[in-house]
Parts: sequence; C-alpha cells; structure tokens
Amino acid sequence: MEDSSVFFVEQNLLPFEFRILQSDNFSQSCDAIRTMQVRGAGAIGALAGFAMAQAFLAAKKNNDPSLVAGAKAEIESTRPTARNLFYAVEKVYSAGLRSAGDALAEAQAIANKDSEDCRKIGEFGNRLIKNGYRIETHCNAGWLAFVDYGTALSPLYLAHASGKNIFVYVDETRPRNQGARLTAWELQQEGIPHTIIPDNAGAWLMSEGKIDMMITGADRIAVNGDTANKIGTFEKALSAKALGVPFYVAAPLSTFDPSCENGKAIPIEERSQEEVLYAEGPDESGISRKIRLASPGSEAYNPAFDVTPAELISGFITEKGIIQANRDCVMSGMAD
Amino acid sequence: MEDSSVFFVEQNLLPFEFRILQSDNFSQSCDAIRTMQVRGAGAIGALAGFAMAQAFLAAKKNNDPSLVAGAKAEIESTRPTARNLFYAVEKVYSAGLRSAGDALAEAQAIANKDSEDCRKIGEFGNRLIKNGYRIETHCNAGWLAFVDYGTALSPLYLAHASGKNIFVYVDETRPRNQGARLTAWELQQEGIPHTIIPDNAGAWLMSEGKIDMMITGADRIAVNGDTANKIGTFEKALSAKALGVPFYVAAPLSTFDPSCENGKAIPIEERSQEEVLYAEGPDESGISRKIRLASPGSEAYNPAFDVTPAELISGFITEKGIIQANRDCVMSGMAD
Repeated sequence: MEDSSVFFVEQNLLPFEFRILQSDNFSQSCDAIRTMQVRGAGAIGALAGFAMAQAFLAAKKNNDPSLVAGAKAEIESTRPTARNLFYAVEKVYSAGLRSAGDALAEAQAIANKDSEDCRKIGEFGNRLIKNGYRIETHCNAGWLAFVDYGTALSPLYLAHASGKNIFVYVDETRPRNQGARLTAWELQQEGIPHTIIPDNAGAWLMSEGKIDMMITGADRIAVNGDTANKIGTFEKALSAKALGVPFYVAAPLSTFDPSCENGKAIPIEERSQEEVLYAEGPDESGISRKIRLASPGSEAYNPAFDVTPAELISGFITEKGIIQANRDCVMSGMAD
Repeated sequence: MEDSSVFFVEQNLLPFEFRILQSDNFSQSCDAIRTMQVRGAGAIGALAGFAMAQAFLAAKKNNDPSLVAGAKAEIESTRPTARNLFYAVEKVYSAGLRSAGDALAEAQAIANKDSEDCRKIGEFGNRLIKNGYRIETHCNAGWLAFVDYGTALSPLYLAHASGKNIFVYVDETRPRNQGARLTAWELQQEGIPHTIIPDNAGAWLMSEGKIDMMITGADRIAVNGDTANKIGTFEKALSAKALGVPFYVAAPLSTFDPSCENGKAIPIEERSQEEVLYAEGPDESGISRKIRLASPGSEAYNPAFDVTPAELISGFITEKGIIQANRDCVMSGMAD
C-alpha cells in the first residue's frame, strides 16, 4: 500500500500476462476480490485488511464516519468462505475505531505477519518432506495466494532450496484451473520439476504408488479441524486416506475460525455456472478467447469449496508447528 | 455398414455439430477410433468389428489374404484398454477365416447384439432406480458410446420413459469433457433434467446427501470384478464407498475379459498431454478455437483410464441381470 492505493498482481491474466494493478479505494478492492483478480486465502485477507483501512481513510477525508459500516459489509460479502478475509477485516476495523492511521498500520501488520507465518510454515513443512518425495497439491496455495511464500507450496520451496529432489503433481483444479495456471507457473519460476494432471487422476496415481504425500492450503478451518478448501480437496483427502497417502493442510492460525465448531458451520460459496461452462485462454496467435466447453442449453452447478472432515487430515502445518487435526490440539494451538 | 463402408456419428464435433462420417476401409476406421471420432466401449467394439470385416473384404477383392494379419494388429493397437474392441476383432477374425461374408455377418451380429444387450441393461438397471432419484454419472456411456441405448444411461432412459422423476448430475469428465459435451447433450435430446458438475464436486455432493446412486460404464472388467473405466471413476467409487452411495457399473458381458484375472492385468492407455493442456470449442461467434488452459512451458500427464477395485462396486448391470462384483459371480455370469 502506498498512500491510499493498494498494488497487487492481477491473477486472472496469469500465466499468460503479468500485470500489477492498483486499487484506489475499498470499492475497487472489493471488485478485485470478487472477480478473483486477487485470490488465495492470505492474499484475500491482506487485500481485505487494506480495503478496510481504505474505508477508514475515506471516512476521515470526507468527514463521514458512516461509510465505514457499509464498507465493512461490502468487503465481507465478497468471498463468504474465506476466513482470512473476516479475520483481517475484524482486526483492521477494531484498530480503525481508534484512528484511520491505526487501521492502516494494522492492515500492514497483517500483511507482514502473513509473509512471516508462511515462511515458518515452509520450515515446519519442509521437515515432513524426504529427498525424492513426489508431492501432489490442489489449487494454488503458493506465493500468489499469500503475501509471500504461500502455505502448501512454501514447504516445497524450502525443500527444493535445501537441495532435496522433489517432484510435484499439480491438480489442474477445475473449474478455474488455478493449479494448471498458477501453481504450475509458480513452480516454473522456482525451477521445481512438476507435471499437471487432470483432477480425475489423483486416486489412480496414489494407487500406483506415485504420490508420497499431499499438501493443500485451506480457506477456513473449524475448531474441530474440519477444513474448507477448494472444491475437490475432500475427494483427494478421501482418496489419500483410502490409499495410505499422508494428507497435510498448510495454513496460518489466522485461517482457523474460533466461531465455527465444525465444518457444517462453514458457509460454502457458490459461484457462477459460467466458470464451468466456458474457458478462457490464448489461441495459437496469443489472442485470448472464451470458448464453450459444454453442450449448449445445459446448465452447471459450481460450488467453489468443499469441507474435508478432520479425520482425513494427517495434520495442519502452521507457523507454530504441526497441529493434529482434532479439537484439543486445534484449541491449544489457537490459545497459545 | 453398407457395402464396405461404415457410417458413424463424428463425436469430436458434438455437441456443436452433428455430422455423419463414412469410413471406406479398415485404415480409415482405425483413424476414427484412434482420434476418438468414434469412442465409447460398444461403439468402438462395433466399429472395430466392421473394420476387421473391411479388412477381409479388401483381402478378398485384392486377392491378398496377407493383409488381414496386419489389419488385425493395427485395429488392436488403436485403444489398448477397450475390451469390446478385442472381443469384436477376435470374433470377426474367426468368422473371416471361413469367408469374408461370414466376417461381415459376424460384425453386423455384434452390432445388433450390442443394441439388444444395452436395451436389457436398461431394463435391469431401471429396477434399481426409485422415483425421485438423483443419479451421478461419469464420462459418456449413452447411445453415442454404443450402437444404441448405451449402458450407464440406458437405465436412466427407461426410468424417465416409465414416468419416474429423475435428475442427473453429469461429471464434466476432464480432460476430454465427454460428460459436459456428450452426456449432457444426450440427456437434452431425451428431455431428462440434469446439471453439469466439475469432476471435483462429486464427493461434496454425495456428502451433502444430493446423490442417491452412481452409475458408470466400463471399458474392461477383469474376472475378479476390477473395472477399468474413464480416469476419475476410481476416485468417484472411493467417494461413493466412503459416503454410502451405491455405485453401479453397467456393461454387457462382452466387456468382461476372461484373460484378465484382476485389474493389474488391464493395460491402461496413456494419451497425449495436449488433451490436458488445451481445450477446443466454439467462441461467441461459433468459430471453433483451440486455447491453452495451462501455464506455457509446463507439461501434463494424461492416463485415460483407471481401475476401480471390485470391492468398491455395488454390482454390475448386465444384459443378464445384476451380477455381484466378485470372482464367483462374474465367472458364473460369463459361463451361462
């Protein structure tokens, strides 16, 4: 953030174009989150915090404190499943009640802490990774999805940097292909060997002994360890459990929601069916085209997240270390 | 088949264009199978049988019996996982050793029997479907995939025709989207309510109580009941088992392979990574475009099938009735 403007990577254009966009007010920041120009648990949280600070700055400038409440509601309506969004908005809101400057400082502190937490997640996660490991991941929980490092990918970056040979199977992650587009691109930037697989191939690769562990991120974690993450995570976790593959969720403690006793309390965002029915990307000439993937006249259903029950999760990789996926351990981890 | 030409629906153009193509010799028929202009267990089997007959007709016309062996090998190399292909080729080959006319008659008999078997599969499968059922299916095992009726979809067609209210959740079935393209289109033609879902959403819908049963087709079934089918079937079956959803496989007995003791003996076809990295479809103007879905420079792995272990299968819906997925019942069903 500089003055009242936030700068961010436009993730819808990646990996075909790298562009930095600027948001000058909370409304533009909400649009960026809603349209997924900014997506990923920590990146959404950071921008939501800055958006809340932008609202306080605007209220001060216009001498109109009443706009803060409406802004808070608008920010919170953008991505209902994302815990880090609500976490950041609440913290910046509390600080903003003291002063707009405090709101800004709090938003910056949240962004800084996100980066530091992700670095520590990398360190703890790296201890689980042995030389030669082949690791499957779903969606994108790398540095694009956070302020830096990422969660699920942070351990892989540290493992690679520390000289371990690793290979990553990247679920393409329909319908928005964050795996094929964003995770694959990040891994290329880091020089980590990888291949993209259809989401359908996970269980088969596990049964063939080709996956040593799976790590995903999380969008919201309930007190009992039930975890909301990108649609398909649940199916991977079921497959991993049945086939004996360790299944870890990497997330900072800010993703844990003390108000959710279990997964049933987590709201699941349903997104437009257009995301399933159409795809966009460059043609042979590099011109972006939107094409129909499905039979004309048919509709689609597009739940954006699912909930993986705690009993399928081998552990949470957090900035405080590995936390077992049960109520006692989660409560203890959150309380420290 | 008319004279030595076979006529078939070009399935790569569907659902955006309906075109009947003609193959005048076994080599053209092989191309049609290899490029998936003709795909689906029974349709592949029928065309493979006709292709074998075309080879005998050509050998007779050119007075060159030696071309038959090469043709047989070429046909058998097109889709290695497809049991019905080998079944049809063997039967037509045996008949052709008597006369080219016998080969042609045998190929036609296989096609006719496929249609009749599928009708019976529909009758037996319909008995499993209750009014109000919501049924998930994977890939396309409808009339496009066979000579008529189909396997997994045949019970749905009969249930609908007999006045039952049913609703179908159609897995889009990456990477080639046979669900979103072909199954959705077939269901539209039949007037059956349905919606397309990302492959990732299956387990989540099951856990939400939205799926009453799942039916898929099969490409090859081992003697012990292990079943090769479109990649992703295994993951659905694991999810269905864990979440208490009945999981049926619909297939004629010609899909059962007496030479495969179990799933490990079934060859799994690996297809081009291009199928994962690119997608084709019409843009807003109806012009077909091929776009890149994945990060440039990244590669993909594309196993076309997986093997679902027998213990995950509630039963096989065959032309002889429901067969339990174990060695004794399969052997008994094949022996009758």
